Amino acid sequence: MTQMKPFLSDNAAPVHPKVWEAMRAADSADNPYDGDALSAELDARFSDLFGRECAGLWVATGTAANCLALATMCQPHGGVVCHEEAHIEVDEGGAPGFYLHGAKLMLCEGEGAKLTPEGISALIGPIRDDVHQVQPHAIAITQASEYGRSYTLAEIEALSAFATERGLGLHMDGARFANSAAFLGGSAKDAAGPVDSLAFGFIKNGGMSAEAVVLFDPEQADLVKYRRKRAGHLQCKGRYLAAQVLAMLDGDLWLENARHANAAAQDIASGCGDRLMHPVEANELFVRLSPAEREALRAQDFAFYDWGEDAARFVTAWDTREDHAVALGKAIASL
Amino acid sequence: MTQMKPFLSDNAAPVHPKVWEAMRAADSADNPYDGDALSAELDARFSDLFGRECAGLWVATGTAANCLALATMCQPHGGVVCHEEAHIEVDEGGAPGFYLHGAKLMLCEGEGAKLTPEGISALIGPIRDDVHQVQPHAIAITQASEYGRSYTLAEIEALSAFATERGLGLHMDGARFANSAAFLGGSAKDAAGPVDSLAFGFIKNGGMSAEAVVLFDPEQADLVKYRRKRAGHLQCKGRYLAAQVLAMLDGDLWLENARHANAAAQDIASGCGDRLMHPVEANELFVRLSPAEREALRAQDFAFYDWGEDAARFVTAWDTREDHAVALGKAIASL
Amino acid sequence: MTQMKPFLSDNAAPVHPKVWEAMRAADSADNPYDGDALSAELDARFSDLFGRECAGLWVATGTAANCLALATMCQPHGGVVCHEEAHIEVDEGGAPGFYLHGAKLMLCEGEGAKLTPEGISALIGPIRDDVHQVQPHAIAITQASEYGRSYTLAEIEALSAFATERGLGLHMDGARFANSAAFLGGSAKDAAGPVDSLAFGFIKNGGMSAEAVVLFDPEQADLVKYRRKRAGHLQCKGRYLAAQVLAMLDGDLWLENARHANAAAQDIASGCGDRLMHPVEANELFVRLSPAEREALRAQDFAFYDWGEDAARFVTAWDTREDHAVALGKAIASL
Amino acid sequence: MTQMKPFLSDNAAPVHPKVWEAMRAADSADNPYDGDALSAELDARFSDLFGRECAGLWVATGTAANCLALATMCQPHGGVVCHEEAHIEVDEGGAPGFYLHGAKLMLCEGEGAKLTPEGISALIGPIRDDVHQVQPHAIAITQASEYGRSYTLAEIEALSAFATERGLGLHMDGARFANSAAFLGGSAKDAAGPVDSLAFGFIKNGGMSAEAVVLFDPEQADLVKYRRKRAGHLQCKGRYLAAQVLAMLDGDLWLENARHANAAAQDIASGCGDRLMHPVEANELFVRLSPAEREALRAQDFAFYDWGEDAARFVTAWDTREDHAVALGKAIASL
Repeated sequence: MTQMKPFLSDNAAPVHPKVWEAMRAADSADNPYDGDALSAELDARFSDLFGRECAGLWVATGTAANCLALATMCQPHGGVVCHEEAHIEVDEGGAPGFYLHGAKLMLCEGEGAKLTPEGISALIGPIRDDVHQVQPHAIAITQASEYGRSYTLAEIEALSAFATERGLGLHMDGARFANSAAFLGGSAKDAAGPVDSLAFGFIKNGGMSAEAVVLFDPEQADLVKYRRKRAGHLQCKGRYLAAQVLAMLDGDLWLENARHANAAAQDIASGCGDRLMHPVEANELFVRLSPAEREALRAQDFAFYDWGEDAARFVTAWDTREDHAVALGKAIASL
Repeated sequence: MTQMKPFLSDNAAPVHPKVWEAMRAADSADNPYDGDALSAELDARFSDLFGRECAGLWVATGTAANCLALATMCQPHGGVVCHEEAHIEVDEGGAPGFYLHGAKLMLCEGEGAKLTPEGISALIGPIRDDVHQVQPHAIAITQASEYGRSYTLAEIEALSAFATERGLGLHMDGARFANSAAFLGGSAKDAAGPVDSLAFGFIKNGGMSAEAVVLFDPEQADLVKYRRKRAGHLQCKGRYLAAQVLAMLDGDLWLENARHANAAAQDIASGCGDRLMHPVEANELFVRLSPAEREALRAQDFAFYDWGEDAARFVTAWDTREDHAVALGKAIASL
Repeated sequence: MTQMKPFLSDNAAPVHPKVWEAMRAADSADNPYDGDALSAELDARFSDLFGRECAGLWVATGTAANCLALATMCQPHGGVVCHEEAHIEVDEGGAPGFYLHGAKLMLCEGEGAKLTPEGISALIGPIRDDVHQVQPHAIAITQASEYGRSYTLAEIEALSAFATERGLGLHMDGARFANSAAFLGGSAKDAAGPVDSLAFGFIKNGGMSAEAVVLFDPEQADLVKYRRKRAGHLQCKGRYLAAQVLAMLDGDLWLENARHANAAAQDIASGCGDRLMHPVEANELFVRLSPAEREALRAQDFAFYDWGEDAARFVTAWDTREDHAVALGKAIASL
Repeated sequence: MTQMKPFLSDNAAPVHPKVWEAMRAADSADNPYDGDALSAELDARFSDLFGRECAGLWVATGTAANCLALATMCQPHGGVVCHEEAHIEVDEGGAPGFYLHGAKLMLCEGEGAKLTPEGISALIGPIRDDVHQVQPHAIAITQASEYGRSYTLAEIEALSAFATERGLGLHMDGARFANSAAFLGGSAKDAAGPVDSLAFGFIKNGGMSAEAVVLFDPEQADLVKYRRKRAGHLQCKGRYLAAQVLAMLDGDLWLENARHANAAAQDIASGCGDRLMHPVEANELFVRLSPAEREALRAQDFAFYDWGEDAARFVTAWDTREDHAVALGKAIASL
């Protein structure tokens, strides 16, 4: 039997051995919920990483992380500007509507699923300043974007300046934040820039069940803690989630894993030439491929999703085998 | 240094070795979310266990399990009858208000934190059948109760008959369902009786982060699946949660662990005599102890919580050492 | 001082004398809330009007009427398909998000702000049948549409057939339902067609503060009654609202008033020629007019709103003076 | 046929002639919603009346007024302390759960349905300061209370000091605020004391469909305006509501009407002696009367509600006939 070469997604990858190790080490009893010694380390660890004071809270999914962070900046009668193909709009089952008590997602266009001040301005400019229309309260961007694009520090700064000017909060959905940070040079600080909150993803990058809500205004931590409990997301054995996050931060495992995935993505990209629909700035590739071409690749045991009629999506992960990635790049080049 | 003899709670106990083993075995990639082979087994496994068709869905906390189940039976404008000291009222941070979109908990009295048809009838009888008053839609009971009491099959049947007559759903919060089942003779079927839904707890009993929502009307599974996603509780590596649940069900580990904890509770109880505030029908003890007596016990390295001014709560777990339990029983008897 | 010729909107018109009269006649005390004799008549009156059994409930605004009706057909985790320029999306301050507990409006394109089965199919077809994407539960159309267009009976029947096939509810926002009914020949039955619910507007058409939620599945009346109370919309002196509705139904005053407004709209339309952006099928006109032309009209004391850069909106009402309408038509023709 | 002497409630009384007059005078067109000249007067009028800057907003029901005001001081994850028999708990169909997005009402005991700092302290003192328990965010009192008792200025000041110390908002449900103000000497300022917000009732006191939300922190007006629209409570012909409120304020009609009702209540009280269950401090009486005695009164054409098994409730209104009240007092005295 031939072995599959998997590029379907990074969201079902195995757990990294060091994460397993850290979880097992957390087995001895400690205080329940987030009262344990490991959870207590998170604020300081994230503050160190980002070079500014912040609060770090574990939560089991990126959906919950995004929604809890957004609840600090958007009232139930307000709106959150996001890209029309943003994960929070398209793939979270309406979670923002639930967590924000009916607040509205305001859908913005933008190349590569990235937002710009100009794009947002065009969207919200015509909104009348009266109670008949939902007013924007916040902006949510995705790093890396839904098309695998990364925001540069300058771009985030421009969005932040715009947000500040309009009195809006700025949240970053960082399900693949590590991949962007790796692409941009390795600085978490630069990859987050001056956002107000970040959903820092670890699960796709080697974790099992722990993402972090990072709040750069630590005064918002209280609200998120109450809302996390209220959403049934305060696990009683929280130390196992904290252990995952700490294992990923230790020795910059998060960055190492992301670099590995990104390198594999570049291996593939090198064979794609003009077929690439978007520059590869993280660990996702969107490649123009006809049905027949996709069939040919699948006949060579490459597994991946179709992307519409004439394209495919390939995702690499922390455990993607280099030979698989190289082989895929070559296979595409040979089509 | 002396070793602590811990009776604080079962909610921070270590993960059982067989659960760890099962989780590690789930490491190889599979479909994400609940599309994996392990999650697919749950419906059949729970149907076997309960002897009637049901749907079984993993979720990371009991709070989420309870609330998702209640959402199948209580509309936003309705109410859920529960004991005035029920966990959903007292200790879930208002989660039912969130998940049920503002529905009301209707607080009922009852000996040992148990509800009876008479008690519920006295509470809801005076509610006028008009739109000015919130109407009950469901009843929630806790097995074992917040005072460690177990409902017998006959009691559950009586509640179910009452609920049916009044057109109410009947949910069971089973955070310590295993302990009641063990106490009542070992039958999951009898311990659940004819309830409509059950939040089946595994975490306190040796799991890490997986409880099950068991729906005895499988047609409700769809609603719970959409709401689970919407609440950010659909983990992408769901196979690790399914693995936990299956490991607990395999060879009735859930029952074995609960029996161990219950036996330890009885070891303690045997030394308590009249001090017991409630019969010990699971793994919790509420014991009249003066401040001086509690101090004396703590001086012997027993760890536990005060329960008001003149009592203490002791909780045993799957990993409680028999010698610790016996020692505690003797220490109390010697006071 | 010259007198203004007002075409701004129908939403601030005076109350019709017969409505005043009916309200005053309701002054003698009766049962509070909706227990009075007048409110009790509504079900039968609307059932007569529509030729099928229905429930009719007063409520103070069209926003509340729409949202309460939609709550009968859309769960919190679902979505309501509406036109991207629908009033519920653009002008109700996010009310559907509030009343539907975070459900999503799914925005559909369509000529003249009207929906078609084809358009809806194109929107919802690509939605994956999985929990990650919000599923449509209902369709909402506006009669007359936001551009003053009327759905014919055949069009509504086609939408209803489509909705039934897809398992969706079908609601009609009838803020200007009377104007459509008048345009279509005077039959309420035909203007509503087989919709599941209708927000029947009276306020713009001569009422003061009473619209009706008409539920063609009377079994849903209970839910709406509880939700109306819960939304603070059950007025204790409800008889004054019922009186308004009954006065409008008596002798078909609703139709007479709408015919008057529509006739005025046609008087204007006759002077507009190619300037009309949409056929005039109710009491609103959208007319291409340059800034200079609009200025010229305002210099002649016509009051109206700009519609973007190069157009204007004119709305007629039950009390529009015929000479004003004729004058406006001529003034536009003379530009 | 004999004429009924009605003491059922004040909530279905006729509209006062001066209110009718003001509404008719508002008939000429003006800006829609709250953009009209009458609505624009409210802030100043209430600021004058209360002697401190405030915002005044009309809304159609007391339920909406209470809930919108509470939304300024209670987050969805918080709680509102109120009396266990408070109208918002018992008779508003769960509206606070809806408007506050699942926040909890925390039920407090208190003589005469009045709260005291001591009572509240006893209720909230035991709440653990952790995320597992809902924390109080606000206190709601009712003036006059559900048993017709009035809070003195000193009592309100004590509650306000307590609220401030605990970081809680203080709201007053003033469905019968006028009756308390009249009882306490006629000063609106003293009857409200230093509360943060007031639902000022006019409907029971001669209005038709307008209460006022009075916000003593005018910065909260914006939030209430957005939420009012979102709740479907922004009526397009708002001038008719503003007209009602202004008519009630003009020449202190609100006070005159309340004095009339209170005097009638005292006329009855003078015949009740020991039968009174509560001091009569507004326009409601709770009177011990056996079934036979109640039957005897009804045989004399007095209409009223039973209050449990052995009592009755009598309510007077702005239009209660003095001879009816005197007759009732005598009839009770004669039993």
